[in-house]
Amino acid sequence: MQTLPRLAITAGEPAGIGPELLIRLAATPLAANFVAVTDRNLLRRAAERCGLTVELVDDDGGDISQRPPGQLRVHHVPLGAPEQPGTPDPANAQHVLATLAEAADGCMQGRYAAIVTAPLQKSSINEAGIRFSGHTEFFAERARADVVMMLASPELRVTLATTHLPLAAVPAAITADTLTRVLRIVHRELKAKFGLPEPRVAVLGLNPHAGEGGHLGREELDTIIPTLETLRAEGMHLLGPLPADTAFVPSQRDRYDAVLAMYHDQALPVLKSEAFDRTVNLTLGLPFIRTSVDHGTALDLAGTGRGDPASLIAAANMALELVARRRTHSQGHP
Amino acid sequence: MQTLPRLAITAGEPAGIGPELLIRLAATPLAANFVAVTDRNLLRRAAERCGLTVELVDDDGGDISQRPPGQLRVHHVPLGAPEQPGTPDPANAQHVLATLAEAADGCMQGRYAAIVTAPLQKSSINEAGIRFSGHTEFFAERARADVVMMLASPELRVTLATTHLPLAAVPAAITADTLTRVLRIVHRELKAKFGLPEPRVAVLGLNPHAGEGGHLGREELDTIIPTLETLRAEGMHLLGPLPADTAFVPSQRDRYDAVLAMYHDQALPVLKSEAFDRTVNLTLGLPFIRTSVDHGTALDLAGTGRGDPASLIAAANMALELVARRRTHSQGHP
Repeated sequence: MQTLPRLAITAGEPAGIGPELLIRLAATPLAANFVAVTDRNLLRRAAERCGLTVELVDDDGGDISQRPPGQLRVHHVPLGAPEQPGTPDPANAQHVLATLAEAADGCMQGRYAAIVTAPLQKSSINEAGIRFSGHTEFFAERARADVVMMLASPELRVTLATTHLPLAAVPAAITADTLTRVLRIVHRELKAKFGLPEPRVAVLGLNPHAGEGGHLGREELDTIIPTLETLRAEGMHLLGPLPADTAFVPSQRDRYDAVLAMYHDQALPVLKSEAFDRTVNLTLGLPFIRTSVDHGTALDLAGTGRGDPASLIAAANMALELVARRRTHSQGHP
Repeated sequence: MQTLPRLAITAGEPAGIGPELLIRLAATPLAANFVAVTDRNLLRRAAERCGLTVELVDDDGGDISQRPPGQLRVHHVPLGAPEQPGTPDPANAQHVLATLAEAADGCMQGRYAAIVTAPLQKSSINEAGIRFSGHTEFFAERARADVVMMLASPELRVTLATTHLPLAAVPAAITADTLTRVLRIVHRELKAKFGLPEPRVAVLGLNPHAGEGGHLGREELDTIIPTLETLRAEGMHLLGPLPADTAFVPSQRDRYDAVLAMYHDQALPVLKSEAFDRTVNLTLGLPFIRTSVDHGTALDLAGTGRGDPASLIAAANMALELVARRRTHSQGHP
């Protein structure tokens, strides 16, 4: 009998909506063996706040073939201090990092099939005196991997050449080296994780109208076009550079499997406006599958039980889909 | 009996799809007195290419109360050379400019209620040795007006603080002076042309996450926020600066009447992806109503009769809507 994929779910910031979202995720009938990597008492209190009954089972590392809704396995990682919903406490910074480390190491050791993360509070970890810039960077460092951020909905996959940079710093960051590095990871991962034998990537220009032949900026002529030519010669199927304003119209969508945007606000407004609660954050380049919610800790909602689990459910679904594709792939090509 | 609004429709580049789109517009039952400002023989040939019968009537400047579909008035402006569909001829540059001048002057003299423009070929006008950067700039200069570009669909109105600039030049262009000038025009025109007594404008940040409190760029703290504060003190209803990636999600849309984006690719991809064939270009700040298609001359389609008139029809509808609002407004507040 087929066993359910063991997904490590981290609760993120204990004072945010993460723990309550985990309870709501557990209440769904999704065919997954969810292993909550967090404090079991935190989960118990979160269930009370949601007004839901949840059966918490200590994880023994074993497999199951069925999970009744409401049942949740727990890999207990104790809190540093009791949570106060809405008020993050730096005394829990080490706790949060320990949950991420367990999830990552567990994936690399084969104990979990994938990681799904709820939101954490970066500032609270920094206030504990720890240098930390986010989930993505933590996992990249732990796995010694070079990564690329992808945001995806069921209809659109967007990858980013630059992420959280001031706009003024973007043009200088678009170099042949960066584009080559990013496109190689995107191409490899679309094949490996998404099962696309010949992935097609639409690359956006940096400037409006993709520079309009040099009239609106020269980065396309000087950097982007020559880099794409080099990578096409290696066999990659690359479109562009395309003008961003028309790259997402319906008639274009069938031409590519993913978009590479040059910067954050060039593509994410499109993705989020059309799929705001179904957008999932994925990290490409890791030796394991990692998906995440695409929202923050919502401190104003924490403790009310009213946080919306749509994005966490979408992230879990995406992880399950990628795990299933990997299983098929391994079975088909031993 | 109510007379039909007299809309000046310019055909743009004679070798592009503009003339054929005018024929298709005339074939609709729209309640407007369309006055095609172009060469009447060009229109006759365009009708043949579309396989449509059109009744061309020389415009006598008079009013009508009904227009059978297919009937079109013409203000004849002779071509400089016969058109060759697909191949613009600089010998027609002066012809194109003469149609724009007639439409603008006619509006300012009260002979037309509004202008709707089909696409022109800027490069062909430049090849004739004429300094020309587009419809918008031409009308601004002719009317000695300070203008702002708006792109609008039935669901979303976007105005731009900067338009066709290389991305690297955008941050320096976002000054207190520019934002003040642009927001005053947008605010005034949303009241005057759109009939919104207290328009609400959502202003996007320049940087990702609107700068995240200075961590991702300082333009919001140094320039945008102080400028918005000053303008709010004058009574403007301004939201933001908002992060661009979440500003367009459905739950935000009801909070504003228009968006001010800092640059071209921050907002137009959203607008065009959701309303690609219903997007209209409007010029705010002119002493008359001017709308335009939101596409180019489609030289590859010119002469085939297969150009899609959806955007021109949307532009005509938007012009009619604004004319109707102005009529109501003038009657209600004499």
